[in-house]
Amino acid sequence: MNKRLVIRLQSSILLIEAAAMLPSLLVSIIYRDGATHAFLKTIGLILLFALPMHYFSRPIEKNLRAKEGFVTVGSAWVLLSVFGGLPFVFSGLLPRFEDAVFEAVSGFTTTGASVLTQFDDAPRGIMFWRSFTHWIGGMGVLVLTLALLPQMTGRTSHLARAESPGPSFSKVLPKMGDSAKIMYLIYAALTMLQFVLLVFVGRMSLFDAAIHAMSTAGTGGFSNYGSSVAAFNSSAVDVIITVFMIVFGINFALYYRLLIGDFKSFFKNEELRWYLGIALFSIVAVSLLIMPQYGNFFSALRYGSFQVSSIISTTGFVTADFDLWPSAAKMIILLLMFIGSCAGSTAGGMKVVRITLMSKNISREISKTFQPRKVQVVHLDGKGVDNSMLFQISLFICAYVILTLIGAFVVSLDGRYDMLSNFTACITCVSNVGPGFGAVGPTRNFAGYSTFSKYVLSLLMLCGRLELFPILVLFHPDVWRKG
Amino acid sequence: MNKRLVIRLQSSILLIEAAAMLPSLLVSIIYRDGATHAFLKTIGLILLFALPMHYFSRPIEKNLRAKEGFVTVGSAWVLLSVFGGLPFVFSGLLPRFEDAVFEAVSGFTTTGASVLTQFDDAPRGIMFWRSFTHWIGGMGVLVLTLALLPQMTGRTSHLARAESPGPSFSKVLPKMGDSAKIMYLIYAALTMLQFVLLVFVGRMSLFDAAIHAMSTAGTGGFSNYGSSVAAFNSSAVDVIITVFMIVFGINFALYYRLLIGDFKSFFKNEELRWYLGIALFSIVAVSLLIMPQYGNFFSALRYGSFQVSSIISTTGFVTADFDLWPSAAKMIILLLMFIGSCAGSTAGGMKVVRITLMSKNISREISKTFQPRKVQVVHLDGKGVDNSMLFQISLFICAYVILTLIGAFVVSLDGRYDMLSNFTACITCVSNVGPGFGAVGPTRNFAGYSTFSKYVLSLLMLCGRLELFPILVLFHPDVWRKG
Repeated sequence: MNKRLVIRLQSSILLIEAAAMLPSLLVSIIYRDGATHAFLKTIGLILLFALPMHYFSRPIEKNLRAKEGFVTVGSAWVLLSVFGGLPFVFSGLLPRFEDAVFEAVSGFTTTGASVLTQFDDAPRGIMFWRSFTHWIGGMGVLVLTLALLPQMTGRTSHLARAESPGPSFSKVLPKMGDSAKIMYLIYAALTMLQFVLLVFVGRMSLFDAAIHAMSTAGTGGFSNYGSSVAAFNSSAVDVIITVFMIVFGINFALYYRLLIGDFKSFFKNEELRWYLGIALFSIVAVSLLIMPQYGNFFSALRYGSFQVSSIISTTGFVTADFDLWPSAAKMIILLLMFIGSCAGSTAGGMKVVRITLMSKNISREISKTFQPRKVQVVHLDGKGVDNSMLFQISLFICAYVILTLIGAFVVSLDGRYDMLSNFTACITCVSNVGPGFGAVGPTRNFAGYSTFSKYVLSLLMLCGRLELFPILVLFHPDVWRKG
Repeated sequence: MNKRLVIRLQSSILLIEAAAMLPSLLVSIIYRDGATHAFLKTIGLILLFALPMHYFSRPIEKNLRAKEGFVTVGSAWVLLSVFGGLPFVFSGLLPRFEDAVFEAVSGFTTTGASVLTQFDDAPRGIMFWRSFTHWIGGMGVLVLTLALLPQMTGRTSHLARAESPGPSFSKVLPKMGDSAKIMYLIYAALTMLQFVLLVFVGRMSLFDAAIHAMSTAGTGGFSNYGSSVAAFNSSAVDVIITVFMIVFGINFALYYRLLIGDFKSFFKNEELRWYLGIALFSIVAVSLLIMPQYGNFFSALRYGSFQVSSIISTTGFVTADFDLWPSAAKMIILLLMFIGSCAGSTAGGMKVVRITLMSKNISREISKTFQPRKVQVVHLDGKGVDNSMLFQISLFICAYVILTLIGAFVVSLDGRYDMLSNFTACITCVSNVGPGFGAVGPTRNFAGYSTFSKYVLSLLMLCGRLELFPILVLFHPDVWRKG
């Protein structure tokens, strides 16, 4: 393994993290929230740690092999989360290390599961940092790294393969750095648009709007209110956030298509159609199911559509306690937690494209049983899909379910909560959603779990965010062998 | 489609069912349970229905194509269950048609999920029939059919492919009918051995011993006591049944190997090792977890080993209310419900061999990410396993999980029970186990579900028993097209 290159990359990522703390530091200074020292200490520690790493590890060759790409990505996320959690510790908001790491992992992975119980006097700079981790986590810290470090060329696409959500990385432009920049610009522009709408139409304060725009963009879900978006009790806010949650669940490569006037490939995209179809079906079904609880259809539609969009986009904002809904509505919410949004978006979950291809594949398998000699090809966007790709997808889905079930068993060793809470805690972490059911339901949080379980759940969030294998690979003995 | 042949086979199966009711009729007459008329009426109806089918459908050609095989098997199970449920209706024990069908499907699929609430005055002949359906369901009614109908040669192996549990049908002997006969003999001998042990060591009455031996053999789980095996409160009974549940979860082809003195291939069988390993690990883990509730390790071991064996073998007998256990122990029980026993046994579930191959496959996929050019083959019993087989297995597991989740949603439309009850009701039905958690927990039953849900759950039991595709195929429009 080219250790020097790996260390060099780690140090770069940490230095970027220190730079990323500057806006939060500024917020802390402006609002005089008393947490300024927390950022200064953290930035100081990062510099103390990363600068020697940076200068003593000048790489000889710049070629990055697959193995090194995975190790870099996997360990970078761990380092980012450890240092990213320090402001929570230093400010005294989350004095326990495991809580701070959990919150930071939840932030960077854009999960939005929280162990925070005290919102009222929380320092504004810290709350800003908390949502900012969603925002930089959203597009992948390493896509950001690639955009800012154009000198790292060579075979850096291994990084993107490990990082980018979805079964295949859709290259918008031939050069890696350029495509990252364009996605980054689209992302920033959409966030800004939502921010402006929240301020002028939703009548939010600048601070609240910034927090909620960043958390929506990263499909994260951290709010600076304990009751989440329900705190605003405004239908304008609900509608804006509902729409933008759906928007950030769409493949960003498709927005580029829109930008260059290629409307056809946007509207003909099969994954997008399935995504919007599933969302629409779920909104109608959930709204009908919860109507008796809300008196009329429009009220049910407001809360139903918000919650469906929040879960399918794996954001996790809350305006209604869906744990009190009828179990059929809750089952839809649970299914959406598995499915997630489009590949190439900021969202988590298994991704709609995988579910689509899997459904077609099962349908083919059924018809194969009675037409064994007929050659049948699975299509996506009019093109035949390779069997090896379909095989990988089915393996991914199996690994996803097995990981969630094993996670639920490990977490249940706590002996604190019931099966449903433990199971949904795991699926909501693996899918980077945020809330689950029961003890981790929409009005509860993850503070009650043991230290051990918090680390397990943090690991599950990382596994989900990096699409399992880049994290699972770190547990494979062969990775650490020489050669 | 060769409709004549399909109808002819259906009529044969129904006539065998009528013959299979004769022992229960005899029990009814001996004990004068007042339900004799119920059997006579049912047998009469079957003859009225099947004899004309039989005589007016003499097939011209005897070749059975894959499509016809699946249609025959799928619809045969439906017919068997409808007629098999009639004694419950006519005797007044389960006057509602949907309850009778549910109980019969549960019997034939060797699930053991029950809607029966009244055990004390239940007619003995009916209770005998109820467990007898497990016994004949166990080895597959059609393997039995093949054993008794040696004239049906030609390509009848399509029937066995649809019927036999596990990814590949292990041919013990070259001729279909012969291998069925040998399995049938081993099955009968083991049942008889258990019956004798239950009578002489367990001190059960002849009737109770017969009921429990048949229900164990089919890995079904119907008992003639409302509190299941707990009613005997005998550690001898518990131990005998624990051992035989494990025994009936083993591939029957391996018993044939033992019979012909081939001990090596028995003890070196990888699936068997995994099966026993998983069972042993679960027994130890569960016993340790429940020890605080039972005071000492041996008491915990008695109930822990019984319940683990009952669930992994998908039998479903109960000696302890595992719904009251700590959630980590419950998670193990839930995982075992998915896994099930060995292929080629009378049990349900995904089968240990599939889980084994899937685990190896995922491990290979992980190491592929950093060693993309290394050729790696998945082995089973020292032989390389084809990628297309691995692909099919991963698809099967995905379909299994998706079917369970969709089933849970459909059943939850009832609005009667919570998510965990609905979800575990579906997995326990698909895996042919019997009890679940919550409203369908070990001390509860399925009587509270709506008519619609009872049919859905019956369908899930059939899907699980026939390893999904032979039933799912019936919903594919192409099957019903001409040609």
